[in-house]
Amino acid sequence: MLKKADIISIGDEILIGQIVNTNAAWISTRLNELGIGINRVTSVGDSHEEILAILDEASKRSDIIIITGGLGPTSDDITKPALCSYFNTRLVHNEIVYAHLETFIKQRGSIMNEGNKSQAMLPECCEVLQNNWGTAPGMWFEKQGIIYVSLPGVPFEMEGLMNEYVLPKLQAKFGIEHIIHRTILTHGIAEAQLATILTDWEKTKNENVKLAYLPSPGMVKLRLSVYGEKNGSALIQQEEKKLHEIIGNAIYGYDEDTFESVIGKLLKERNSTLSLAESCTGGTIASKIVSISGSSDYFKGGIVAYSNEIKMKELGVPAETLVKHGAVSQQTAEAMAEGVRTRFETDYSLSVTGIAGPLGGSEEKPVGTVWVAVSSKEKTIAKKFRFGDNRQRNITRTAMAAMNMLRLFIEGKEIF
Amino acid sequence: MLKKADIISIGDEILIGQIVNTNAAWISTRLNELGIGINRVTSVGDSHEEILAILDEASKRSDIIIITGGLGPTSDDITKPALCSYFNTRLVHNEIVYAHLETFIKQRGSIMNEGNKSQAMLPECCEVLQNNWGTAPGMWFEKQGIIYVSLPGVPFEMEGLMNEYVLPKLQAKFGIEHIIHRTILTHGIAEAQLATILTDWEKTKNENVKLAYLPSPGMVKLRLSVYGEKNGSALIQQEEKKLHEIIGNAIYGYDEDTFESVIGKLLKERNSTLSLAESCTGGTIASKIVSISGSSDYFKGGIVAYSNEIKMKELGVPAETLVKHGAVSQQTAEAMAEGVRTRFETDYSLSVTGIAGPLGGSEEKPVGTVWVAVSSKEKTIAKKFRFGDNRQRNITRTAMAAMNMLRLFIEGKEIF
Repeated sequence: MLKKADIISIGDEILIGQIVNTNAAWISTRLNELGIGINRVTSVGDSHEEILAILDEASKRSDIIIITGGLGPTSDDITKPALCSYFNTRLVHNEIVYAHLETFIKQRGSIMNEGNKSQAMLPECCEVLQNNWGTAPGMWFEKQGIIYVSLPGVPFEMEGLMNEYVLPKLQAKFGIEHIIHRTILTHGIAEAQLATILTDWEKTKNENVKLAYLPSPGMVKLRLSVYGEKNGSALIQQEEKKLHEIIGNAIYGYDEDTFESVIGKLLKERNSTLSLAESCTGGTIASKIVSISGSSDYFKGGIVAYSNEIKMKELGVPAETLVKHGAVSQQTAEAMAEGVRTRFETDYSLSVTGIAGPLGGSEEKPVGTVWVAVSSKEKTIAKKFRFGDNRQRNITRTAMAAMNMLRLFIEGKEIF
Repeated sequence: MLKKADIISIGDEILIGQIVNTNAAWISTRLNELGIGINRVTSVGDSHEEILAILDEASKRSDIIIITGGLGPTSDDITKPALCSYFNTRLVHNEIVYAHLETFIKQRGSIMNEGNKSQAMLPECCEVLQNNWGTAPGMWFEKQGIIYVSLPGVPFEMEGLMNEYVLPKLQAKFGIEHIIHRTILTHGIAEAQLATILTDWEKTKNENVKLAYLPSPGMVKLRLSVYGEKNGSALIQQEEKKLHEIIGNAIYGYDEDTFESVIGKLLKERNSTLSLAESCTGGTIASKIVSISGSSDYFKGGIVAYSNEIKMKELGVPAETLVKHGAVSQQTAEAMAEGVRTRFETDYSLSVTGIAGPLGGSEEKPVGTVWVAVSSKEKTIAKKFRFGDNRQRNITRTAMAAMNMLRLFIEGKEIF
């Protein structure tokens, strides 16, 4: 790591537990991508003394200090005066910010209030970062070689200011050049097993390509990074190609991809349509599919068939299949997938039936047993999964496993 | 506030942004309920020096220090030795913990590895808090009148240990008695408006009943608290009754209730069934309904009718309704609700159709326009909503507004 940073969140709402500090994780990730390490993440309340104290402490260990929160139109009276004390400066009216605020608020059909007016009062010594996403501008300070940045706490405003100004300025300031990352998203192989499979590759990969395992529920992300090499892209592409040869089928996407975005892309490319038949996931998969803007181009809809009656009536699952094999069976999953595909007249369909729990399990079919089927005109394939005993986790894991199966099926790859 | 606390999270995974620190918000909320204020929340990496430094700093300002993380079977080598240094003690083998670990791991069909064995090595001077939810025990230290508690970072293990041991022990230790909270959940009235409506009540309420507004997206929670009064329950009930007279219809539940749990309870009480017809929310409401264990008792299922074709074919919406009024209209919403209720043969139904965005809006029907309908054998009621221009927020807000409308409808209350 080249430089070190502290992240400070200001606000009583964090200290009473009303808000989860998601900003810190987002900023940490972005700074890490620039090769900047994080010393500490601290939350303090809306207190003049606390703000001065933490700035003083952070400046002793870090080169960069990112402060979020405490800049809203109502809490305005704490953070900015504290910054003025710390930097020995005063608040001055900023014409450009005022004009921008007027336009911004007018566009939203509202009028400037006293709180907004005070948002145009800014510390004299700072560089103002124009907020195009809200009303509180960002501030950039330098003091004895240390960078201090103060940003509003609203996540998308903070993210806008970081992406637009702060990250490029840090990169320029500290000569951070040619940093390239590629995150490879995998599903279906646990972290420990993945590490074993990749042992040989890790030993022989180009030493300038750094690897990080980033596991999260139901997936493992592999982050490849190259710092300060002009041919970084080529080096990463080389290693990515090797990874594809070893674990190709487990790779479902890259960087910001999600199962739903990947499935959407595959269907659009093929000009194909999709329908869903969900039992235990009860609409969870559908809600993910429609989270993608433009999904109406390929998603016709689905049936949430929670009762057996609906499985028969709306999906045409034969009564004898349900009696003979049960609602959670290969036969029912296949009949559901074929039923929804033919009724909704789509090219592909996906069905899910399982026991989410905590009740409803048996010795033969314990809680966490799930059947997933995928279907096209050519064929229908079903697969059994066995998850745990937590209802919400079973639903989440089922949705991910089912969407992974669907994307392998559409791509014509082996379902493993 | 009676006492003050610091919350410390240990782990590199927080500093690289891989994990959002949800533990801190949960602990803050619980401690606040005991009248304990939070001085600071800090995240530090897996570093011996950093752990010693933050313990030292926190002990200068706080009476209680809660530490989470850094106790897993693989990261075990950092936090416990640091605690030993800090408390000038050593790690000793704990027979009871070892026996408990053996049983715990055996029950899960696994065997003790070296990592697990080291989890039974604990600082000699601590009081051990048995972990019934995982493998890393909690630790309780006292030094110069200050309480230090070290807990694993896995949220449900940490929560189990806090609820079972830490919170009751703190309450006993600091003589925190007769603290009563009641959280009243409201929907449909914005915070500022709510504050105006409640001005008179606030002025005349019993002064021992403290009020906190806790707004979160789509709802405002009102927390009533009484500290150190033996008749606290009665005082709160009194004020709650008054609130019901003023904003009764906006109150949808209490404490840990959710829309889906409230709807489930109402349907169970009435032995009634539910079906759903979702367009723009695409299964989001269904996925919430099935998140409740036992929802199969009252939820038969639903149709995700994303295309007009499916609205006609599966829900019986007349083609002329779609042509004349459009897919996002009172008429279509009503036809969807009635269609799914009669096809699925349920007592109640709920339908949603709207423009989630960012595309698909028009001058007449801008992005964020949503129609919701509720239906029973007796009647069908539709209502129009106008949300913003963010797709994901529109979907979330629509789901909440629709579920609120459904619970008012089932209860026979006025839909406002």
